[in-house]
Amino acid sequence: MKNDEYYMNLALELAQTARGKTNPNPLVGAIIVNKGMIVGSGLHRKAGEPHAEVHAFRMAGDHAIGATLYVTLEPCSHYGKTPPCAELVKNSGVSRVVIAMKDPNPLVAGKGIKLIEEAGIEVTVGVLETQAAKLNERFIHNMVYKRPFVIAKTAMTLDGKLAAYNGHSKWVTGEESRQTVHYLRNEVDAILVGIGTVLSDNPMLTTRIEEGGKNPVRIVLDSNLRTPLDAHITDCHDAQTLIFAKEGADQTKAEALKAKGVQVHYAPETANGLDLGFILQVLFEQGLTDVLVEGGSEVNGAFLRAGLIHKYLIYVAPKILGGRHSLTPFTGADVESMDEAVQLEFDSVAHIGNDLLITAYPKTKR
Amino acid sequence: MKNDEYYMNLALELAQTARGKTNPNPLVGAIIVNKGMIVGSGLHRKAGEPHAEVHAFRMAGDHAIGATLYVTLEPCSHYGKTPPCAELVKNSGVSRVVIAMKDPNPLVAGKGIKLIEEAGIEVTVGVLETQAAKLNERFIHNMVYKRPFVIAKTAMTLDGKLAAYNGHSKWVTGEESRQTVHYLRNEVDAILVGIGTVLSDNPMLTTRIEEGGKNPVRIVLDSNLRTPLDAHITDCHDAQTLIFAKEGADQTKAEALKAKGVQVHYAPETANGLDLGFILQVLFEQGLTDVLVEGGSEVNGAFLRAGLIHKYLIYVAPKILGGRHSLTPFTGADVESMDEAVQLEFDSVAHIGNDLLITAYPKTKR
Repeated sequence: MKNDEYYMNLALELAQTARGKTNPNPLVGAIIVNKGMIVGSGLHRKAGEPHAEVHAFRMAGDHAIGATLYVTLEPCSHYGKTPPCAELVKNSGVSRVVIAMKDPNPLVAGKGIKLIEEAGIEVTVGVLETQAAKLNERFIHNMVYKRPFVIAKTAMTLDGKLAAYNGHSKWVTGEESRQTVHYLRNEVDAILVGIGTVLSDNPMLTTRIEEGGKNPVRIVLDSNLRTPLDAHITDCHDAQTLIFAKEGADQTKAEALKAKGVQVHYAPETANGLDLGFILQVLFEQGLTDVLVEGGSEVNGAFLRAGLIHKYLIYVAPKILGGRHSLTPFTGADVESMDEAVQLEFDSVAHIGNDLLITAYPKTKR
Repeated sequence: MKNDEYYMNLALELAQTARGKTNPNPLVGAIIVNKGMIVGSGLHRKAGEPHAEVHAFRMAGDHAIGATLYVTLEPCSHYGKTPPCAELVKNSGVSRVVIAMKDPNPLVAGKGIKLIEEAGIEVTVGVLETQAAKLNERFIHNMVYKRPFVIAKTAMTLDGKLAAYNGHSKWVTGEESRQTVHYLRNEVDAILVGIGTVLSDNPMLTTRIEEGGKNPVRIVLDSNLRTPLDAHITDCHDAQTLIFAKEGADQTKAEALKAKGVQVHYAPETANGLDLGFILQVLFEQGLTDVLVEGGSEVNGAFLRAGLIHKYLIYVAPKILGGRHSLTPFTGADVESMDEAVQLEFDSVAHIGNDLLITAYPKTKR
């Protein structure tokens, strides 16, 4: 027997295939079912393109009459780039609408549902809500906090080592894990590192996957503008680069970087380095909805202590490095007690090649 | 349909309930099946008590005639504390014997099987062999290497921290994980720590479980005999204590410790501290078949570098500590490159309360 959960799960499956492509919009999937047959299906593929419901109703045509619509997010009620989907639903002829979750924007939540209910259509809300909320964790965070969703990604040995004392770290994880990182980059708007990583690794921070993929905007925290003018990330042909420096940093260097196409921004300083809250605000104003923080240890530690990590992706390799001064994935200022640890909740543990990928979220409301 | 794997699995289930109680003997379970009914069952409960087959045949009586015996380890062929089980099997009337694995002792492997086959009984070897070998990993190691099986157990935060820079570590993991450690202690012959742990934590290293349980022998690596005479581990009423010091360590202190019932042994020194290979040899000669190494970081690192850890149990707590000088679970001498990491294979990941328990083995033959 195919029930509401079955069809909603299909809609979620459709939606998630567009991960990373719909920003700043949410991931949405829609399924229209009439007498046990799927008569319409669709998903939101990209900002500016039709919403999921539009695709599904176009496919369904007259078969929508008397049917049930399954949609992973409350249909919109406002005129944006497209007319409101709630109006479309109202006039579609469906007799029932099943919605996984309300619009997370507290100012609009429920308005789409109200419009549909007022047309005499039966509405069920909350089917697979947890899954739908996880699917759109980035979008929900954006709506509620008006800030980018921050994902910290790091890799370590089973004894918590990122590199030997001298920085040697090639490679902690296996090839499969390293490849999945490129898929992560393909899904985010921005990737962030500290100047230490630029100086030691001279990374490109681009997305290298078979399907091509998109390059995230590269963000470097570089208080004193030490980024070399020949660093890979100053080549802005394939990807944009934003450097955050402290106020009063070397103007001549800033001009030289700008001449290469790099954007230089200034941020206030705090006891733990540049003001990360301020930086995230600037990034959000620039339309960047999520940021993948790829360390090193000090940058990870600064985001940790600022309470600004919303999701943790920790790759663990099946090896033990040891070494008294080996580097660890999160450092920052020393703490006096185990009680100062930031509390998390494990979400999942996946096997990637020979490695583990542990996903965790902050324990407190995010 | 109940097949060979089904009955062998039952025999393995019976066997494992005696974990920690049969040392130095293996864990063995036996099931006798006649016309689809289990007519005999047994396990080896404790060294000196009857073997699994003896219990099973006693229960089966005449029902053994024409039956199939399932046994998790090749029946013994030598006269030890009990007569050889292979003789018992030969004379039991069973028509078929299914054995999970051969005796791991290369000098005797196959002799029990040969005796049974020569009596015209059909023998199948290798059913659930992998599971049987894991069940008796300690025993197999003892037989092959004539040394104790070494299990390293540690706990860390998700960023690989054991404690803050000042040693504060209460608590890394949750109560459930800490309780499982007492069950581990109940299953091993010996538990080993460094003098650093004695000085900083003054632990008792006893088994505290509801069922009572047995206390493992406590081993302390203490080159210069710094163990205080009022340290908990010098109280030998409930558990035995062995201290290993370097040759030439303070004789007066040694005598004072011995007066309290502590055994003091001397070991040669290597570049990385006391000679761990020598120490394991002494422990094995004392009849200790496995050792739970409970750190700290330096002792763990020394065992790691000596290649003397045969199993890793890493508890991971859902928290991130950070801190530039926080302590990590394996240290020891610094390494120059990630290539020097000891390669492992993940065996399993279990959820214990809110924590994870990652079990791993050395990648190379152990």
